[in-house]
Amino acid sequence: MSELTNHCFRLRRRPEGLLAKADLEFVQEVVPSLQDGQALIRTLWLSVDPANRIWMSESHYYLPPVELDAVMRGIGIGQVVDSRRVDLAPGDLVNGLVGWTEYVIADPRTDVLPFTVLPATQPAPPTAFLGPLGHTGVTAYLGVHDIGKPQIGETMVVSAAAGAVGSVAGQIGKALGARVVGIAGSAEKCDYVVERLGFDACINYKAPDWRDELEAATPDGIDVDFENVGGQVLDQILTRLKVGARIALCGLISEYNSYGTPAEQSDRPVRPNVAQILLANRAVMQSFLVLDHADRFAEATAYLTDLIARDQLTYDETVIDGLERAPDALNQMFDGSNTGKLLVKVG
Amino acid sequence: MSELTNHCFRLRRRPEGLLAKADLEFVQEVVPSLQDGQALIRTLWLSVDPANRIWMSESHYYLPPVELDAVMRGIGIGQVVDSRRVDLAPGDLVNGLVGWTEYVIADPRTDVLPFTVLPATQPAPPTAFLGPLGHTGVTAYLGVHDIGKPQIGETMVVSAAAGAVGSVAGQIGKALGARVVGIAGSAEKCDYVVERLGFDACINYKAPDWRDELEAATPDGIDVDFENVGGQVLDQILTRLKVGARIALCGLISEYNSYGTPAEQSDRPVRPNVAQILLANRAVMQSFLVLDHADRFAEATAYLTDLIARDQLTYDETVIDGLERAPDALNQMFDGSNTGKLLVKVG
Repeated sequence: MSELTNHCFRLRRRPEGLLAKADLEFVQEVVPSLQDGQALIRTLWLSVDPANRIWMSESHYYLPPVELDAVMRGIGIGQVVDSRRVDLAPGDLVNGLVGWTEYVIADPRTDVLPFTVLPATQPAPPTAFLGPLGHTGVTAYLGVHDIGKPQIGETMVVSAAAGAVGSVAGQIGKALGARVVGIAGSAEKCDYVVERLGFDACINYKAPDWRDELEAATPDGIDVDFENVGGQVLDQILTRLKVGARIALCGLISEYNSYGTPAEQSDRPVRPNVAQILLANRAVMQSFLVLDHADRFAEATAYLTDLIARDQLTYDETVIDGLERAPDALNQMFDGSNTGKLLVKVG
Repeated sequence: MSELTNHCFRLRRRPEGLLAKADLEFVQEVVPSLQDGQALIRTLWLSVDPANRIWMSESHYYLPPVELDAVMRGIGIGQVVDSRRVDLAPGDLVNGLVGWTEYVIADPRTDVLPFTVLPATQPAPPTAFLGPLGHTGVTAYLGVHDIGKPQIGETMVVSAAAGAVGSVAGQIGKALGARVVGIAGSAEKCDYVVERLGFDACINYKAPDWRDELEAATPDGIDVDFENVGGQVLDQILTRLKVGARIALCGLISEYNSYGTPAEQSDRPVRPNVAQILLANRAVMQSFLVLDHADRFAEATAYLTDLIARDQLTYDETVIDGLERAPDALNQMFDGSNTGKLLVKVG
């Protein structure tokens, strides 16, 4: 194979707040030649996830921080273009940590996580394996089934309801018979959440009277919170918990950009005393991580595939074209301007 | 039956901080005559519990607040002295909400909780039914077995380790094979916790270097926290959680006296962001209440009786003599000067 040119993002500086131009450098490099046991993968799609932002900080979030000058880490789908591995053949579609790069060399001896070959017969387009049938959908499934456990007629709240995980979580809650109230960041998103996704109600947390609206939409209080946002949204939800409430702590996207800046945190108003609130309501707040539950993927994707087949699970994608726009895509996720799963089309 | 004189405490004012003289009035009254379906019970022992203090506030803690001018609520053991109920006979020993009173009329039509007759053959003295074989012990059992789930070799921390619940919780943890580190409020208590109860270590949180000592005693971090105290003790524990940690939130005794005084709370230093800490560690914080689990009492007391029989469960009582000293006894619990189960001997 002749010399192959690659483009990729390398992390040059740990960002503060939203990504700035100088945090990542878009570089051109030569792809090294393959060794025995390695495969060359061309990235097709990148999944844009809140975890990307965390990995750029100094926080260890199930994987160590991306080292400075290393290629930026990211989940995605790629296609094997050359292989000196017995388990991967050219043409295979794979799911895994491709990274913010056009080409990646997959080597099980050094990769932090293995690549998975997508099933030959696919119930949905490949990008669904980054959305409802991938880590996104399984995250929603685990949080709802294992922690939230909504019962028929209970009230379940989902923050970031128009987002990739929230949209699936809420639809699972509906399928289980709960009354599901979304929280999202614009009137348009709320329309989408109610009209397209079928939630019972949705609160725009940027509206001035959103706290009153949340109260009106949850007249009996909140049994289940599928929490993606944190900050003032979570603070408000905490004031409406019912006895026995369950909080599936999936993410705190409103708080990630302030990781590492304690000064910002101390300027905040006094926050609710989480422990006192949990104690008074015999409630539970439980965090979870999809990667801890590899043994549950088959069960989860079977359930989600079935929901799609029954027309009980709608999903949408926002596709940004071009690897070089990955940093903008990530900032867009924190702006809250995307709906559904946010993807970058690379290949 | 001739006219019977009763002494009892009536709640005259909601306390702020520790109980003051004027909060409760010790009054002399005539016991009304029994109606059909009622039984007259003489209080023998009162259990002094943090819940007593909460019930005096305006907070609803699994039962509504005690109304002003009502007899103070309390768990205890009594003996039936007269009965017009088919289910209770004179001489029966009963466990239930006797209240801070010498005599109480038990009437299932109006009682918030039913009385339970103690088993005829007792594996331990009757007061054990207020301690390791009563709500205290079952609380420890449920928190350890259902939430903490310590595994062999894991590190379990128990705050208020010399107290009634903490002492049992830690010994259950030891029986399950965990390394158990207590936290208590004096060097004497710590000696008691290690030498008499058999914990592996105990930290005196009033010592100036207690944070360093906790770190030294939990070199690999904390897998399980059985939390009774809250405040700075919990804050420090939160800094040492391991991935997958479980916090059984049993009580927050250091925070109860400031219920209802938000000013005190806002003066506090910035506290750890509980949600962020749980998220980063895929951890769970779960509150529970023994009264929600009446169906588990038989299982729990069988387990605890067995531990006593195997000499794996040591318990001690601090007995205060005389109903009129009940308020002092409750203040003593918040002073932290008692060891083991705190009881008031009434009859």
